[in-house]
Amino acid sequence: MAHPALAYRPHMDDRATCRARFNGVRAQTLSLTDGLAPEDMQIQTMPDVSPTKWHLAHVTWFFETFIAKPYLDNYQEFDPRFGYLFNSYYEQVGAQWSRSDRGLLSRPLHAEILNYRHHVENAIGTLIDTASGSDWALIAPLVELGCHHERQHQELLLTDIKHVLSQAPDPHAPFGKIESAPDAGGELAYLTFGESLIEMGASPDGFVFDNELPRHRRWLDAFEISARPVSNAEYLQFLDDGGYQNFRLWLSDGWAWLKENDVQHPLYWRKTQTGWQEYTLHGLAPLQPGHPVCHISAYEAAAFAEWAGGRLPTEPELEQLAIHHPAEGQLLGANERYHPGRLIGTGKPEAVIGGVWEWSSSGYEAYPGYRAPDGAVGEYNGKFMSGQQVLRGGSCATGRDHIRPTYRNFFPANAQWQFSGIRLAKR
Amino acid sequence: MAHPALAYRPHMDDRATCRARFNGVRAQTLSLTDGLAPEDMQIQTMPDVSPTKWHLAHVTWFFETFIAKPYLDNYQEFDPRFGYLFNSYYEQVGAQWSRSDRGLLSRPLHAEILNYRHHVENAIGTLIDTASGSDWALIAPLVELGCHHERQHQELLLTDIKHVLSQAPDPHAPFGKIESAPDAGGELAYLTFGESLIEMGASPDGFVFDNELPRHRRWLDAFEISARPVSNAEYLQFLDDGGYQNFRLWLSDGWAWLKENDVQHPLYWRKTQTGWQEYTLHGLAPLQPGHPVCHISAYEAAAFAEWAGGRLPTEPELEQLAIHHPAEGQLLGANERYHPGRLIGTGKPEAVIGGVWEWSSSGYEAYPGYRAPDGAVGEYNGKFMSGQQVLRGGSCATGRDHIRPTYRNFFPANAQWQFSGIRLAKR
Amino acid sequence: MAHPALAYRPHMDDRATCRARFNGVRAQTLSLTDGLAPEDMQIQTMPDVSPTKWHLAHVTWFFETFIAKPYLDNYQEFDPRFGYLFNSYYEQVGAQWSRSDRGLLSRPLHAEILNYRHHVENAIGTLIDTASGSDWALIAPLVELGCHHERQHQELLLTDIKHVLSQAPDPHAPFGKIESAPDAGGELAYLTFGESLIEMGASPDGFVFDNELPRHRRWLDAFEISARPVSNAEYLQFLDDGGYQNFRLWLSDGWAWLKENDVQHPLYWRKTQTGWQEYTLHGLAPLQPGHPVCHISAYEAAAFAEWAGGRLPTEPELEQLAIHHPAEGQLLGANERYHPGRLIGTGKPEAVIGGVWEWSSSGYEAYPGYRAPDGAVGEYNGKFMSGQQVLRGGSCATGRDHIRPTYRNFFPANAQWQFSGIRLAKR
Amino acid sequence: MAHPALAYRPHMDDRATCRARFNGVRAQTLSLTDGLAPEDMQIQTMPDVSPTKWHLAHVTWFFETFIAKPYLDNYQEFDPRFGYLFNSYYEQVGAQWSRSDRGLLSRPLHAEILNYRHHVENAIGTLIDTASGSDWALIAPLVELGCHHERQHQELLLTDIKHVLSQAPDPHAPFGKIESAPDAGGELAYLTFGESLIEMGASPDGFVFDNELPRHRRWLDAFEISARPVSNAEYLQFLDDGGYQNFRLWLSDGWAWLKENDVQHPLYWRKTQTGWQEYTLHGLAPLQPGHPVCHISAYEAAAFAEWAGGRLPTEPELEQLAIHHPAEGQLLGANERYHPGRLIGTGKPEAVIGGVWEWSSSGYEAYPGYRAPDGAVGEYNGKFMSGQQVLRGGSCATGRDHIRPTYRNFFPANAQWQFSGIRLAKR
Repeated sequence: MAHPALAYRPHMDDRATCRARFNGVRAQTLSLTDGLAPEDMQIQTMPDVSPTKWHLAHVTWFFETFIAKPYLDNYQEFDPRFGYLFNSYYEQVGAQWSRSDRGLLSRPLHAEILNYRHHVENAIGTLIDTASGSDWALIAPLVELGCHHERQHQELLLTDIKHVLSQAPDPHAPFGKIESAPDAGGELAYLTFGESLIEMGASPDGFVFDNELPRHRRWLDAFEISARPVSNAEYLQFLDDGGYQNFRLWLSDGWAWLKENDVQHPLYWRKTQTGWQEYTLHGLAPLQPGHPVCHISAYEAAAFAEWAGGRLPTEPELEQLAIHHPAEGQLLGANERYHPGRLIGTGKPEAVIGGVWEWSSSGYEAYPGYRAPDGAVGEYNGKFMSGQQVLRGGSCATGRDHIRPTYRNFFPANAQWQFSGIRLAKR
Repeated sequence: MAHPALAYRPHMDDRATCRARFNGVRAQTLSLTDGLAPEDMQIQTMPDVSPTKWHLAHVTWFFETFIAKPYLDNYQEFDPRFGYLFNSYYEQVGAQWSRSDRGLLSRPLHAEILNYRHHVENAIGTLIDTASGSDWALIAPLVELGCHHERQHQELLLTDIKHVLSQAPDPHAPFGKIESAPDAGGELAYLTFGESLIEMGASPDGFVFDNELPRHRRWLDAFEISARPVSNAEYLQFLDDGGYQNFRLWLSDGWAWLKENDVQHPLYWRKTQTGWQEYTLHGLAPLQPGHPVCHISAYEAAAFAEWAGGRLPTEPELEQLAIHHPAEGQLLGANERYHPGRLIGTGKPEAVIGGVWEWSSSGYEAYPGYRAPDGAVGEYNGKFMSGQQVLRGGSCATGRDHIRPTYRNFFPANAQWQFSGIRLAKR
Repeated sequence: MAHPALAYRPHMDDRATCRARFNGVRAQTLSLTDGLAPEDMQIQTMPDVSPTKWHLAHVTWFFETFIAKPYLDNYQEFDPRFGYLFNSYYEQVGAQWSRSDRGLLSRPLHAEILNYRHHVENAIGTLIDTASGSDWALIAPLVELGCHHERQHQELLLTDIKHVLSQAPDPHAPFGKIESAPDAGGELAYLTFGESLIEMGASPDGFVFDNELPRHRRWLDAFEISARPVSNAEYLQFLDDGGYQNFRLWLSDGWAWLKENDVQHPLYWRKTQTGWQEYTLHGLAPLQPGHPVCHISAYEAAAFAEWAGGRLPTEPELEQLAIHHPAEGQLLGANERYHPGRLIGTGKPEAVIGGVWEWSSSGYEAYPGYRAPDGAVGEYNGKFMSGQQVLRGGSCATGRDHIRPTYRNFFPANAQWQFSGIRLAKR
Repeated sequence: MAHPALAYRPHMDDRATCRARFNGVRAQTLSLTDGLAPEDMQIQTMPDVSPTKWHLAHVTWFFETFIAKPYLDNYQEFDPRFGYLFNSYYEQVGAQWSRSDRGLLSRPLHAEILNYRHHVENAIGTLIDTASGSDWALIAPLVELGCHHERQHQELLLTDIKHVLSQAPDPHAPFGKIESAPDAGGELAYLTFGESLIEMGASPDGFVFDNELPRHRRWLDAFEISARPVSNAEYLQFLDDGGYQNFRLWLSDGWAWLKENDVQHPLYWRKTQTGWQEYTLHGLAPLQPGHPVCHISAYEAAAFAEWAGGRLPTEPELEQLAIHHPAEGQLLGANERYHPGRLIGTGKPEAVIGGVWEWSSSGYEAYPGYRAPDGAVGEYNGKFMSGQQVLRGGSCATGRDHIRPTYRNFFPANAQWQFSGIRLAKR
């Protein structure tokens, strides 16, 4: 969800299913902003974070640019300036407003962007209802792609607004309070996998992004992998043991990052006189020991693994785990929770899918035989295959229909603001 | 208006006058925001710029902190967190939110800040009406000081929001369109002053800031000074003559600044296919040749003067001019104009007061015998007497009751976002 | 050669062989500085570059710290301050002088460092001759390690001094002029490899670094790989075709790097009125079309591959090529050349080993089952397994006894100052 | 001495005097480098610092460019590349090597620069002996100017090499140990001056720089000024009293500078377990309480003055003091000392001239009626009249024939690496 990988394997829905899906995704996006004021939605705290308002417009620009304008006769463009303002990085489509300056744009106002959303939704609705059969064959996969694209931005919208709101001394909680049952936790158990020549990557049915392709063979040595993500309580032991002061535990780049940014704990933890607190989208509250540690950079994850005598799993190991333990954890909007929930304190395996994204030790690279698709929607597919690290599994901000065992997320190793956590491997 | 110089010579108003003045200033501040949405008022474009919202709260915090809390019995503080958020640089009063991060605070919302304003205005109103005589003697000068402080922030609010709105490709105009009569301009005439031992600085009656004191003697050699500020047409000749490419015209620091920031014209000028345009608070419009050139750094002013064969006037020369030619130009809200207006195209002298601030060549230094007043309100009076350059006269954003011939404004030589222009001197 | 990987598989030489090897390596290091003055050896042009003087001392510090001090009775430390100055990153050994400030140290002078070298060489010589049998078993592998460590620094010394000298408008040539036969080049031919389950990594005999271990299985799909590196002539076609202006060819990070640093050609190319020139350690001379393109970042290599319709090979593919085509190219000091030489212009395969390092598309990661060795010499082995990309093969600055098919070099993708080039793969 | 102000009032010497002076200045420059190795002379520690080697070449370039090339028939330019490398900022003369990259040039070597010096000295000697009468009238003032220019660079050479050598943990001492008699110090006494209309600036005889002109009138109020500079013992009281922690004492820019650079004491002080030490060009030694505090920024000077209940003197006040107390302190090479010496511990006035430069509170501005001279030698005279603060008096590194009561030195307020100290004023 770092960057929408816009090329994909075509997939066809019937018109009613497509429309329901489109309406559902669009409505859910707006519902995520219910607790926000226009001023909240204006702010950009770092270049990686986009204002909420920008997300609302950008996902709409996608539908307008790739579907409404090319396919709907007499479509009236909402505002010709929006192409410049709300294009993200599709350089083939044209020039764009600088990414790091998105927070400098007060105009268009939030209210105008809502009008833009309605305008484009009407156009897409008309197309779904009235497009000719031959057009429909082209439009349907684009609508599906646009829905997946918007799903990605739903997650980014949540992680970005969390970063924005967290800046305040007394940060706003856009979602209501939630109850958390105390959980004593339990020993971290391990699952064992034998060596084998596996098949990796997506099967040729259903919607997938191009970076999940092609399906290919890999040799995998035997490995063990933890039955659940690492908990706050476990991470706290690492911290209390001087983990952030011991250079021997850290990757060289990680130690430099820690020093330069004076990192002393996970992103949203705060030390108070009454103990550790954590800011979540439900407010500031005491740290829950039994919950998965979250908002962790890959550097922190690797240092923890070193301290714990293990290692981060590789990308194929995490995919195998997801395939063989398909039960799923908490995903977007489940129980109206927007924070990873209670860990199961037993040895019973907890799924990779849901809860927190889990850092692999693998760089984000092309699969053997990968080819980037043609055209603007596929423009940047391979562009990010440098300097990023793969995460697997999906988080509490990932839509259920957006995640699967072969899904590849990727971020730079220093990224903390996603819902990212740790699963351990051993050999 | 760079920084409120908060110590001053005491001055007494009767209660009715004081109340009228207080109400008037407060209402005018709000009226300046009529054309703005909450999103406009959220944004901070550079550390020197504060969000409109912050200005609205900060000037209110001043009245609350220095008047309502110490003097009004049973005063209910509006929100104890505001002291931290809206203190500017009074370190004696306590810790403060980082200046460059003001735009990161979405909360309190604009609507809450309006409530804050009403709450404090009620308290101050009560005090004006009901304070004992002995309290009144202490309160009255503080209310006057607070009004002057708010005047300073009215000007900053206008220059800051102008900077914010100017970022957009198609910038919003908070004030309505204005008509400008074309003006052919005329030769720049000069006024002559003979040598003399002058008295400089403020007289001991009326409100003045401490940096205007004490009144002292200076020897002034004979000089000539232009009868009006430099016009856009004249500045355009400098630009068209390669002024921005000729290092010989520039101060060493100025040339380095120009190169590093790729400065090629005044801050709000834009070159278009149909000629030069200028962004004003009334919108983007063709550059008016007969208007004073505006939003000029001291470096640009000095380079222009060098090109024109003159020099910038010194601070005492500008004060003498203001005293001997007291007629005034355009000040805050005159004719609902928020941009310096038409220059008189004849040799008839145009006053220093109003229109644009005029850069002197003088560094901002203490007058002989200057002593900073005690206490928090005077805390920072002398703190800025390093690295800044004096401007004189007041601009179209300066309140009439806030300016006088001895008023000293000061900014770093690279500041462009104030309404600053050029008057030339010769010997 | 990016960073000495100091743990390794033990390997035993007899005393005479060990001594000859030690003397040979030490003498060769000094011979590389014959064309340099003390002032040349003082300069540091960027944090990644160390002064020649520092290399001369650091490799000596290694022998003193890990061998002379622990094993030679009554060893007289040369200067107790040198531990602080010439430690590189062995944090377990103690504090160290900041890497980016190495060029700020004029003292010790070059002459003193030569004395330091002699002093330590005498001590090591004494140990080789006189150590007891049990000590010898411990010392012999450390001497071998120290020689390999010094080999790494021989290469860095050459690439660093090249960077230093290249800064001048008319750069100094430390080595004499060389003749280059013109070469018309020829079509780039490809070698074909079938799919297989390979063994990868080092065998358990002979000296190897820990990062080459353990030997493990990998599945490798069929691939094709070019029979020689890309030539200057081929790279020039890419450049002339607008390769540096076409964002579609570049990785996202690569495009940002190019823009930020205004990169327009390989590091040491210079455009002159009479055509392209290249600075080599033999001086500035016309670009040789038939030579391998050199001093290329991984970003440039990837963009070229995209333009050419191919891709960079993966790390296992390059290892397979090295194993199956073991003939070698030009290595350190061959024919007194310090620049990659003439390419064979036919389809006959040219070895990976020698000439230029070849960028793989693979991130630098641990092999399955890898464990960092204990102790200070192994301290940082795994520390760099993040944010770096693997290169294979060795260059014209790599010692013959230092390179092998399983050797893993690694640098950040933006590094240009090594002798790095391009080999293409296809499927 | 910040920047050579190259225009001046003409002054004529006879040929023998001129030659003696030229030879003397040139020889003294070289004698200052006796304790240095080529490596010392190569290093640049910050943009403001030039390598010793560069100073040696630049002052020679001045004589070659402005005298030898235009006036000596058949003069053979030493090396045409030197104009580019050793021009400082005379943009009219041509392009120049970047100031901050001077330390990157190993070539020409120090030995070549010595040859350059001899070559140009021969040419100038020939000209002094053989120039025609009409040429001599033009050459003589240029030789004098060149000697003054070299005097300025003698001081910069000393302050720059001190900065270079100070970087080492155990810094080299280029000059031999000196004895310092302990001095108990004494109360700081004050001298009183009455109000008057003074004449300020240079008289029209003898050599002066253009920035000392024209002589003009100023009104000066009565003032008191300390009879000697502030001592290390007095400054230590300020430090021990928490002076570096108390924001109320500091100018706003000064406090920001202190925070950003973590300044905690004068530049060359070092806190050790046995007390404060100071690095001087004679080595690291215990801080001498009775010596003038030295290597102080204007910010530190102003904070000390605030703490001491005084203020810094203005520029005219320091000039008056120099005129009325003409006895002089320690100047360049006196007793082979290169550090300000013992303070007189009594109320007897100590001269401004010599010892340490004394910060005034005055910005560096043009005198009334100032006009920059024409031509390249005068190119930059007024260029620095922005953002700098005046110092008066000369230091232990200032030549006797180079300083006078009207001499104006200037540096940015944050500069610490000059021999700058504090004299206090009161009213």
